[in-house]
Amino acid sequence: MSEQFNSFKPIDSNATPRYAGIATFMRLPYLPVAQAGAVDIGLIGIPWDGGTTNRAGARHGPRQMRDLSSLMRKFHPSLGINPYDLANCADLGDTPVNPIKIEDTLERVEGFYRQVLEQKIIPLSAGGDHLVSLPILRALAEKHGPMGMVHFDAHTDTFDRYFGGCKYTHGTPFRRAIEEGVLDPKRVVQIGIRGGLYSEDDDAWGLGQGIRVIRIEEYFELGVEGVIREIHRVVGDQRTYVSFDVDCLDPVYAPGTGTPEVGGISTHEAQRMLRSLRGLNLVGGDVVEVAPPFDPSGNTALVGVTLMWEILCMLAEQVAKRRG
Amino acid sequence: MSEQFNSFKPIDSNATPRYAGIATFMRLPYLPVAQAGAVDIGLIGIPWDGGTTNRAGARHGPRQMRDLSSLMRKFHPSLGINPYDLANCADLGDTPVNPIKIEDTLERVEGFYRQVLEQKIIPLSAGGDHLVSLPILRALAEKHGPMGMVHFDAHTDTFDRYFGGCKYTHGTPFRRAIEEGVLDPKRVVQIGIRGGLYSEDDDAWGLGQGIRVIRIEEYFELGVEGVIREIHRVVGDQRTYVSFDVDCLDPVYAPGTGTPEVGGISTHEAQRMLRSLRGLNLVGGDVVEVAPPFDPSGNTALVGVTLMWEILCMLAEQVAKRRG
Amino acid sequence: MSEQFNSFKPIDSNATPRYAGIATFMRLPYLPVAQAGAVDIGLIGIPWDGGTTNRAGARHGPRQMRDLSSLMRKFHPSLGINPYDLANCADLGDTPVNPIKIEDTLERVEGFYRQVLEQKIIPLSAGGDHLVSLPILRALAEKHGPMGMVHFDAHTDTFDRYFGGCKYTHGTPFRRAIEEGVLDPKRVVQIGIRGGLYSEDDDAWGLGQGIRVIRIEEYFELGVEGVIREIHRVVGDQRTYVSFDVDCLDPVYAPGTGTPEVGGISTHEAQRMLRSLRGLNLVGGDVVEVAPPFDPSGNTALVGVTLMWEILCMLAEQVAKRRG
Amino acid sequence: MSEQFNSFKPIDSNATPRYAGIATFMRLPYLPVAQAGAVDIGLIGIPWDGGTTNRAGARHGPRQMRDLSSLMRKFHPSLGINPYDLANCADLGDTPVNPIKIEDTLERVEGFYRQVLEQKIIPLSAGGDHLVSLPILRALAEKHGPMGMVHFDAHTDTFDRYFGGCKYTHGTPFRRAIEEGVLDPKRVVQIGIRGGLYSEDDDAWGLGQGIRVIRIEEYFELGVEGVIREIHRVVGDQRTYVSFDVDCLDPVYAPGTGTPEVGGISTHEAQRMLRSLRGLNLVGGDVVEVAPPFDPSGNTALVGVTLMWEILCMLAEQVAKRRG
Amino acid sequence: MSEQFNSFKPIDSNATPRYAGIATFMRLPYLPVAQAGAVDIGLIGIPWDGGTTNRAGARHGPRQMRDLSSLMRKFHPSLGINPYDLANCADLGDTPVNPIKIEDTLERVEGFYRQVLEQKIIPLSAGGDHLVSLPILRALAEKHGPMGMVHFDAHTDTFDRYFGGCKYTHGTPFRRAIEEGVLDPKRVVQIGIRGGLYSEDDDAWGLGQGIRVIRIEEYFELGVEGVIREIHRVVGDQRTYVSFDVDCLDPVYAPGTGTPEVGGISTHEAQRMLRSLRGLNLVGGDVVEVAPPFDPSGNTALVGVTLMWEILCMLAEQVAKRRG
Amino acid sequence: MSEQFNSFKPIDSNATPRYAGIATFMRLPYLPVAQAGAVDIGLIGIPWDGGTTNRAGARHGPRQMRDLSSLMRKFHPSLGINPYDLANCADLGDTPVNPIKIEDTLERVEGFYRQVLEQKIIPLSAGGDHLVSLPILRALAEKHGPMGMVHFDAHTDTFDRYFGGCKYTHGTPFRRAIEEGVLDPKRVVQIGIRGGLYSEDDDAWGLGQGIRVIRIEEYFELGVEGVIREIHRVVGDQRTYVSFDVDCLDPVYAPGTGTPEVGGISTHEAQRMLRSLRGLNLVGGDVVEVAPPFDPSGNTALVGVTLMWEILCMLAEQVAKRRG
Repeated sequence: MSEQFNSFKPIDSNATPRYAGIATFMRLPYLPVAQAGAVDIGLIGIPWDGGTTNRAGARHGPRQMRDLSSLMRKFHPSLGINPYDLANCADLGDTPVNPIKIEDTLERVEGFYRQVLEQKIIPLSAGGDHLVSLPILRALAEKHGPMGMVHFDAHTDTFDRYFGGCKYTHGTPFRRAIEEGVLDPKRVVQIGIRGGLYSEDDDAWGLGQGIRVIRIEEYFELGVEGVIREIHRVVGDQRTYVSFDVDCLDPVYAPGTGTPEVGGISTHEAQRMLRSLRGLNLVGGDVVEVAPPFDPSGNTALVGVTLMWEILCMLAEQVAKRRG
Repeated sequence: MSEQFNSFKPIDSNATPRYAGIATFMRLPYLPVAQAGAVDIGLIGIPWDGGTTNRAGARHGPRQMRDLSSLMRKFHPSLGINPYDLANCADLGDTPVNPIKIEDTLERVEGFYRQVLEQKIIPLSAGGDHLVSLPILRALAEKHGPMGMVHFDAHTDTFDRYFGGCKYTHGTPFRRAIEEGVLDPKRVVQIGIRGGLYSEDDDAWGLGQGIRVIRIEEYFELGVEGVIREIHRVVGDQRTYVSFDVDCLDPVYAPGTGTPEVGGISTHEAQRMLRSLRGLNLVGGDVVEVAPPFDPSGNTALVGVTLMWEILCMLAEQVAKRRG
Repeated sequence: MSEQFNSFKPIDSNATPRYAGIATFMRLPYLPVAQAGAVDIGLIGIPWDGGTTNRAGARHGPRQMRDLSSLMRKFHPSLGINPYDLANCADLGDTPVNPIKIEDTLERVEGFYRQVLEQKIIPLSAGGDHLVSLPILRALAEKHGPMGMVHFDAHTDTFDRYFGGCKYTHGTPFRRAIEEGVLDPKRVVQIGIRGGLYSEDDDAWGLGQGIRVIRIEEYFELGVEGVIREIHRVVGDQRTYVSFDVDCLDPVYAPGTGTPEVGGISTHEAQRMLRSLRGLNLVGGDVVEVAPPFDPSGNTALVGVTLMWEILCMLAEQVAKRRG
Repeated sequence: MSEQFNSFKPIDSNATPRYAGIATFMRLPYLPVAQAGAVDIGLIGIPWDGGTTNRAGARHGPRQMRDLSSLMRKFHPSLGINPYDLANCADLGDTPVNPIKIEDTLERVEGFYRQVLEQKIIPLSAGGDHLVSLPILRALAEKHGPMGMVHFDAHTDTFDRYFGGCKYTHGTPFRRAIEEGVLDPKRVVQIGIRGGLYSEDDDAWGLGQGIRVIRIEEYFELGVEGVIREIHRVVGDQRTYVSFDVDCLDPVYAPGTGTPEVGGISTHEAQRMLRSLRGLNLVGGDVVEVAPPFDPSGNTALVGVTLMWEILCMLAEQVAKRRG
Repeated sequence: MSEQFNSFKPIDSNATPRYAGIATFMRLPYLPVAQAGAVDIGLIGIPWDGGTTNRAGARHGPRQMRDLSSLMRKFHPSLGINPYDLANCADLGDTPVNPIKIEDTLERVEGFYRQVLEQKIIPLSAGGDHLVSLPILRALAEKHGPMGMVHFDAHTDTFDRYFGGCKYTHGTPFRRAIEEGVLDPKRVVQIGIRGGLYSEDDDAWGLGQGIRVIRIEEYFELGVEGVIREIHRVVGDQRTYVSFDVDCLDPVYAPGTGTPEVGGISTHEAQRMLRSLRGLNLVGGDVVEVAPPFDPSGNTALVGVTLMWEILCMLAEQVAKRRG
Repeated sequence: MSEQFNSFKPIDSNATPRYAGIATFMRLPYLPVAQAGAVDIGLIGIPWDGGTTNRAGARHGPRQMRDLSSLMRKFHPSLGINPYDLANCADLGDTPVNPIKIEDTLERVEGFYRQVLEQKIIPLSAGGDHLVSLPILRALAEKHGPMGMVHFDAHTDTFDRYFGGCKYTHGTPFRRAIEEGVLDPKRVVQIGIRGGLYSEDDDAWGLGQGIRVIRIEEYFELGVEGVIREIHRVVGDQRTYVSFDVDCLDPVYAPGTGTPEVGGISTHEAQRMLRSLRGLNLVGGDVVEVAPPFDPSGNTALVGVTLMWEILCMLAEQVAKRRG
């Protein structure tokens, strides 16, 4: 164990069994952000679900995802890379949150990401409900300007208000982000959208903004290769964020989530799509809505961290490319 | 909540959170059948599994399905309709049952459906084990004559007897229905049949009657589009019932069922097939064999009510069409 | 089922099996409060946990408690009464709530209880986290003035603030209630208090106000009979509220709760203490902090509704006594 | 493993790990009853719950109890005996049952026990729901005449009829047994009775017959020693049967049961009472109502087989005593 | 039940319900190997996981698989055969094991299989972790010489050492088997390999030996038919063993396993591939790594025994062919 | 979070919610032992269960216990102390282990504790199975000579060998410790012993050595106060170790353990006994046999860490006393 906090690489699972040791993301060292100057990619938890309108629980996501991330290894055989050879990685811990105040949390989270970005660290985050993407994007936009986004989800999350006026819920982050100029809607692609709607007009606003929505029916028609081409066409080579809500997956893959929708995509397909992001100009990513109370087995969290691992490899290649 | 029992529409999940309130099917008002004269489509539970030969538990199906149905919404974006704009819908509660007497239950259930049909209500039912389809079909046949059936299942349910002479079990309902002239076997199509048999001759009787059995191997060969064409060819434009046993699905989608069979169909495929029933002459439908004790998570029930929602949309279009 | 909503009594479990039918509290009819003029005791759910500082989930409490309450029967053999012969009872549904706004919820809940009290209904409520007791008490105090309280809990819930200034959490309701003059601290008795504290001074404020705190060590020293005497001594014959947080029980009895504390009381002891409230001047009661996601088995909810049943019997005797 | 079926003793857990091997009761050899002439005590499963009025599942009891019985050992240190040195023991398998016909099952089970008794084997049975005790008692009464009974339960199980006329349910076995002269009600003691009743008169019939009912309140007043004295006083030295419904225990000890009642006895107390049966004239015993679907962990089954182990030791002493 | 141990066929589930009786593989008679001279195919459990480097639990696999195997029936409609008409089958119980000593266990297991092979019985085994395949292969090779293998797995299991020198773990069996000349690496095909690696060179040794590794990416490119052709090409018509590690399947099908890897194959595909082994020269098979503590529902075990049933049919045809 | 690793105190749960942050014991900073010179009490995990003869899983104990320990607070109101004011505390991480080699693990663990003791840190450990106490005691004895022990357990753990010669299992540690002179058997008291035995002579060796065994029957006769007096009498004021196997508790409190025995002690009683150790000359302690796979809910782990918290307070007082 003594090596655990002394490098920017995971501890060796062939020496220290995977179930052993303090659980950090990918078995990486934990470093407070103030001491993380040498870090290229920071893995961050946002233990908060105050924006959840139905089944809360995603606040427990980062902890269970850290636990299950012990199952990840170091070399990605499909991509042919070891991301830890390409970039210094560390677990930066959890952001501060306030479990009973939304606005306070949005500020605290955004403040944390500003610190991260000041250190020139690329953030890879684990939610938390989907509202946590909003303060991340706000901090990123301050540095990068309006971004594109590859957004995997069963829901567009571009609703306006809930419960008579609440503007900040896990169903509204991307409406707010577009209104604030943080996202460029013309460079946003949403994949896997499905499920019933509150009304016929639910998706009208987003479509009107120019978001490219690939509903599940079109997803199956295009096939994974077609979707990949569409992703690249929409976001182009400008700065782009990746956000993966695990409810994009069929509930059999991710039962531990707040708003499951029957009839989704598979993890294998998700892996293929995430690997295809190679070469995009990525500024960060997140995996959100893992809600452990609805899957104590940890299977959903395992899926979540496997997707984080895929994104991590993409980001590490980015780091290597920038370094030349 | 006060609106809950005052209309023929679900209460608004954007005002009343989904986990709130007394659980009725689709958050619809509850109306006793005697007061349901204005109802077009009645959602009905049959909490009974007395015909189950192995793992009982489907008696608890309607209650868990009501609970999970809160996750459904109002507008079906793939079909482009809001069924509640097309038809008056209500939860008619559960039929009377006798948990320890089969014959008594068959009579009580049939009696309930006669009342429903007298009110000109189209029934959409939640089982219960598959034997509950028999009294529904008996009541329907009295009104409509011999019907066709689109039957999704891992098993043909056309066995003759169990345990030395028992004619009424969840493995026998459609043999009885055909013998009684309630179903027209030439207009019955069974989809997803698989799993071992007690003997080589198990399926001979049904095939001899002219049932169109699409075993899982043929299902994968034909593909969903091919199966849809075959469904339409077999049942034609005459009166047709839809019965969905959740064990037709692969057990990963529906582990909470009495007789799971590995290697089944997916929910996405089921959704496509159910949506394809558009335009058929449907007289009712059911979703059966959700057994909550074998899936306390509610995931199976969520799948079950999502399939009910698909059938509900088909029935609502039927109502609208009849009204002109 | 047709009888379900036509009387002020539970439907007959010897005719309709307990697992059947739409789940209401105690299998009572559901009546919107506006139509509940003839009701003496109203059973009410408050599906909300926005004040929870750690493990949320009590928002799902009322629904699971309704489900499990089907196991309750009509006659209480230890007390020798059938409460439904003594008082008209009904399920008044859930209060309105806002899952993402505390202040809004406090107002909505208080408003609902004002309506209840205008109808002269005694409220018996199911939480929800413990903050829900505050708006109930506010509405009651408007009618009754400062009340006494028999409070079962592992925690005093008289903390001041959390997370840098939040005054309304499930750890603060009774501090607020005392500050507002809603509770008379000299007539408040807290039973079962235990577990570590944030600091040595945590309980000083409450003790300074004159609350009678029976910590778990004293509880075991006094014995149940001694505690009962102390309850009666403290609250006397003035108006008194009963609030039961299930974390007062040892976690083996109530694992499904947000803040379990090892080493608590048993359900049998709780039953004896609740039955001893006979003769007190009770104005209402609640059972709170049942959090189903942490006990999908429903065992905690069963305990919760059994305690509601005990309180219901006490309230029904009260009604009978007032009627003379 | 090869020893498993070659003796009348459990296989050695110090050689074959407890989780290994085919699961039989107590790791004893399996012998069909026809080959069991040399057996003194036969352990028998009755996998049936057709008399269950609410939550079925006890049909799966014998199998899970066999599995968990691997945790039992050979020497009882509190009693100072090894029952397998005192009596030849074997697992006689399960009785025949018909999961969908009550009367047929009652006949099949009774027939099996006649065979057992013809072989002069003392039966120790694992249910199944409590109705299975009726055919056992019928077979025993044919040999022994009217018997006394030590009956642990939360319910008296002396109801008359359910659901409009059904005489055979798990709530009625002992009413039938007394009516048929199989039990001598004056020598029946019921321990742990509690929970609400359908009506005030529910227990009148049994009390009128002379059954000694020790309700839970009296149980706690008398204390375990007082209850033990009362047991001996009631049943005396005549032939006596022991029937243990696990719902007598508090639900924390036995959540996996059909009709849990909060506020019951502990396993330690049950052990003390069962051990006190030493010296009674016991003709057999059963442990019933273990319902695995409501406790997949197996903890309830572990409790059930531990109680079987206690009864087994009592019966083995009986055998030794008779042998002189 | 009396028939249970008197034939070489499963007991009849239409007479004895599936949940009844002592749980043996496929409801077959149990026979100690010394008495199994007439048996053609022996089903054997190896309750051991001492080679597991992360999450143990597969020691409990055989028992849960026996339990779930009650769901299997007799006639395989896709293949058109009843294997029990083609070959005498029996459950030979579990091999001896030592839960705390690896080398001792390897010897005990190998000794057991020598006895099996002396009786000319074809073994079909249920693990246990994957190291159990090594002693089986050693015993088989003594009789048959170096064998080919169709190996379904997420991992190659050809690692060299773990934890500083341990040569025998569930990650190393096939390296040892090849080194010892028990397997012919040129006739080994591995299907479904995926997941991260400890280092880039992890798979180099196996590839250098000539193993045909079909990683998951190639698997999806070839399609099931292409993979089947490749299997036949590699193993040819020489003696071949089949080993199925359930982690080859996507974790949604087999969550109850020690080292799940997201993004695997489906059970339907596995069934198709296993059925395609028809005509190969099979000398035995196993299904391993079912770890019940990580799936108490039994769903993984159900998948495991369904795959055993598929292999059983292949082996039975082999027996019939040899008999002519 | 930034404070998490900068002090010897837990982070503040009133600022950082309990579910947030990287899980360390009691939310203390993690320090590698080499940097822990200023630490007084070190909390250490031993993630290993290689000595388990039946149900493995305790290897996962430390991680789940760290997770649940977030529920602990800082001030102990019954004792009136804040241990973190009395002693510098830290999480020293997990010891090295080898999951597949017993002897190697024993050496690695002992080596780790030597380092701990060289730093003059008092160890408080979380198992792991009970064999982990042996290397801890070996290291301690080297410093302190033969020690006394207060040992809470359902089993004496003084067996000699298992499975034909294995001397090191979780059933043998204290036999080895006494043989090696590490424990002084005359100063060992074992509390809560119960359950069946393999043979009549199982406990003879320990009794012959002079161990004071308080079996469960005597435990209930003496009462907690009597047991406390006996503990003090036996161990006196010499150096003493505390070892708590959670199977000492009744399985309702600790279902997640390898060898549950029905009829044990309660957590409240355990708390009283542990608090009574005040004033003893304690050199360390452990809580072992928490096996998360058998209790995914975490309730057993919560009990385990609550007991660690009690021992921690005793050790902190010890530190304060020594400092004067």
